[in-house]
Amino acid sequence: MDVPSLMAGLALILVFAKVSGHLAAKLGQPAVLGELLAGVVLGNLGLFGYGGLEGLSHHAGIETLAELGVIVLLFEVGLESTIGGMLEVGLSSLVVAGLGVITPFALGFLAGRLLLPDASAYVCVFLGATLTATSVGITARVLKDLGRSGSVEARIILGAAVIDDLLGLVILAVVVGLLEAERTAAPSALGIALVSGKALGFLAGALALGVWLSPRMFRVASRLEAAHVLLAIGLSFCFLLAYLATRLGLAPIVGAFAAGLVLEATHYEGLTAKGEHDLTEALRPISSFLVPIFFVLMGIRVELRSFVDPGVLLVAGALCAAAVLGKQACAAGVIGVPGADRLSVGIGMIPRGEVGLIFASVGQKLQSQGQPVVTPALYSAIVIMVIITTLLTPPALKWSLGRGARAQPTV
Amino acid sequence: MDVPSLMAGLALILVFAKVSGHLAAKLGQPAVLGELLAGVVLGNLGLFGYGGLEGLSHHAGIETLAELGVIVLLFEVGLESTIGGMLEVGLSSLVVAGLGVITPFALGFLAGRLLLPDASAYVCVFLGATLTATSVGITARVLKDLGRSGSVEARIILGAAVIDDLLGLVILAVVVGLLEAERTAAPSALGIALVSGKALGFLAGALALGVWLSPRMFRVASRLEAAHVLLAIGLSFCFLLAYLATRLGLAPIVGAFAAGLVLEATHYEGLTAKGEHDLTEALRPISSFLVPIFFVLMGIRVELRSFVDPGVLLVAGALCAAAVLGKQACAAGVIGVPGADRLSVGIGMIPRGEVGLIFASVGQKLQSQGQPVVTPALYSAIVIMVIITTLLTPPALKWSLGRGARAQPTV
Repeated sequence: MDVPSLMAGLALILVFAKVSGHLAAKLGQPAVLGELLAGVVLGNLGLFGYGGLEGLSHHAGIETLAELGVIVLLFEVGLESTIGGMLEVGLSSLVVAGLGVITPFALGFLAGRLLLPDASAYVCVFLGATLTATSVGITARVLKDLGRSGSVEARIILGAAVIDDLLGLVILAVVVGLLEAERTAAPSALGIALVSGKALGFLAGALALGVWLSPRMFRVASRLEAAHVLLAIGLSFCFLLAYLATRLGLAPIVGAFAAGLVLEATHYEGLTAKGEHDLTEALRPISSFLVPIFFVLMGIRVELRSFVDPGVLLVAGALCAAAVLGKQACAAGVIGVPGADRLSVGIGMIPRGEVGLIFASVGQKLQSQGQPVVTPALYSAIVIMVIITTLLTPPALKWSLGRGARAQPTV
Repeated sequence: MDVPSLMAGLALILVFAKVSGHLAAKLGQPAVLGELLAGVVLGNLGLFGYGGLEGLSHHAGIETLAELGVIVLLFEVGLESTIGGMLEVGLSSLVVAGLGVITPFALGFLAGRLLLPDASAYVCVFLGATLTATSVGITARVLKDLGRSGSVEARIILGAAVIDDLLGLVILAVVVGLLEAERTAAPSALGIALVSGKALGFLAGALALGVWLSPRMFRVASRLEAAHVLLAIGLSFCFLLAYLATRLGLAPIVGAFAAGLVLEATHYEGLTAKGEHDLTEALRPISSFLVPIFFVLMGIRVELRSFVDPGVLLVAGALCAAAVLGKQACAAGVIGVPGADRLSVGIGMIPRGEVGLIFASVGQKLQSQGQPVVTPALYSAIVIMVIITTLLTPPALKWSLGRGARAQPTV
């Protein structure tokens, strides 16, 4: 293990993440945008003749920490949502989520077919899937920054974004499973059904097992006399489900999200009563250390060289259009909520963040017909799309909610 | 990067760490002892015919996290001590620390000379060095468990343990530097002086630079509008000094400790005033996640097979005797504090924990005359010594302080 380069790399990444997060905040943008751009800068110093950081993009230690970061992030996002809360979200959230998955998927698939004629159908499916999931982190953060977390639009958007995330993860599982199947046999309707069944089965099984196991596990854990038991057992549960997900051929983040979804604060009341920090609170320093490493590393892996290619810019433009326009269908999904501002709901669903990048990074590792599903050029186009949609949302949402507030004074 | 085995390994290590920490606590022992023993169990399942965990002892991802754990631990220990506080600790702490370094070092060197006639002088020096540093973590924890953190004995022991830790790190730097020198040229008095000078120079330089840099750095950082700035900048500072230490041929933990020593809460008042968590508080979840990984991994690397060797047990016995008896010289170091219980001071200095194991793990990576300085057999003997001294202290200290309390009623 190369400890010196790990130390230097981490020191650099953490400082760059915070400074760029600050600059992003100053410009009214979410911190994740700054972290991505900081990574782009660090990863492309070679263009300016400085090659000292070339090793950073594939440093095993930093990769380990980034991988752990995204797993912890999805665990956290899962913890924010509850199975009960998801059942509570109304018809609107469900229809908005459904429309917000179907139309971007269709538009993304079409864009792939039109612009990448040589690519296999899998690549187009993957491209469509990349556009489906709304970044619940970015959406929630923007609404909070605007002080509108409790508005009716906010509730519809957040509910739909959570369902979106879950659907996105199922789609990812299906797509990854399809590629696995491609290697062993020709894909078939039966194969797709099997893969979908396995993905939904894992989630259903994990939820059922988790709901049964979680309170019992924490009841035993609350008897343990050791520091930070809640954190350790919670993380173990997350890692265990992440491991089980990989054993079924799913991404580890699917398991981490399921683990978060299953865990409820009531399960570990015995531990918080003993003075342990709440799990979400104890996770925050860990995620604030590890998560930026993931986003900066994602940025580092953007090859600006490939931006020179007009083909990349064309694909990026098409993806952006598909991403933005596709989510506007969500406006039609607001049902039975007379006061809601449909335009704001559509805009609030635009940001693609974590999940889009996760798709892109998973796609880099997958192969279809001996080619990586996401080539460096396509990866760059996806990152451009994530950057543009992330950048676009805060000012657009601010404008549209402000417009609504003027037309309809606050109650 | 092998994500599935990382997930499974971490889930297993965290659960084992907490369950064994609980069992240790139930037996009145510090959690670190349980973590070590849990590792010994996990690492030696091969003896019972189960080889499924063989990969764990050299898993790159787990090694990265363990390495990060020990760096964060030394940073935390450094944060607990301040330069001012160290200047405040009286004559007693200084003399106790000095005697507590010199006598175990001499006894350890002698034990090496007598029992390992084929070993080079470096190995004996390393063995002596391994016995010097009191584990401040274990000592503090035991005193806290007994409700005696504020007693006069506690203050002498803790002050001496802090100085001890620092001396131990300087000794480690000197010994590692000597071995570096051995590879390039014959060691000489000049070489030793150079190495000592480099080690002390680094610490002095790091302290001077840090004292100048730290308040300025945090003044700039307090203007940053980003979440968890204090944690990120603090960790960056730790990793930067760890990196600089490695550039000078010192261990990264020396830099991490120096970083902690330099940082003072007053430097980042601007950030805590803005509602940021205190650095120590924000580090706690991170260290409680990473530090047990280090100790469990250390335990995993203990080869029980080598215990069968009577030679190992003989060396382990001699090391234990040198460790326990060597620290009893500390009793003579209590000067000008009439009420203090000298026996308790000597017993309180016994535990060798983190630092002893760190020495052992550093020694495994070092080479002298083409041989590892710490062979698997010697490593096992050192771990037995750490286990025995750690195990011995809590009941012995409880007894000796109780004896003092009976003889001399509480004021």
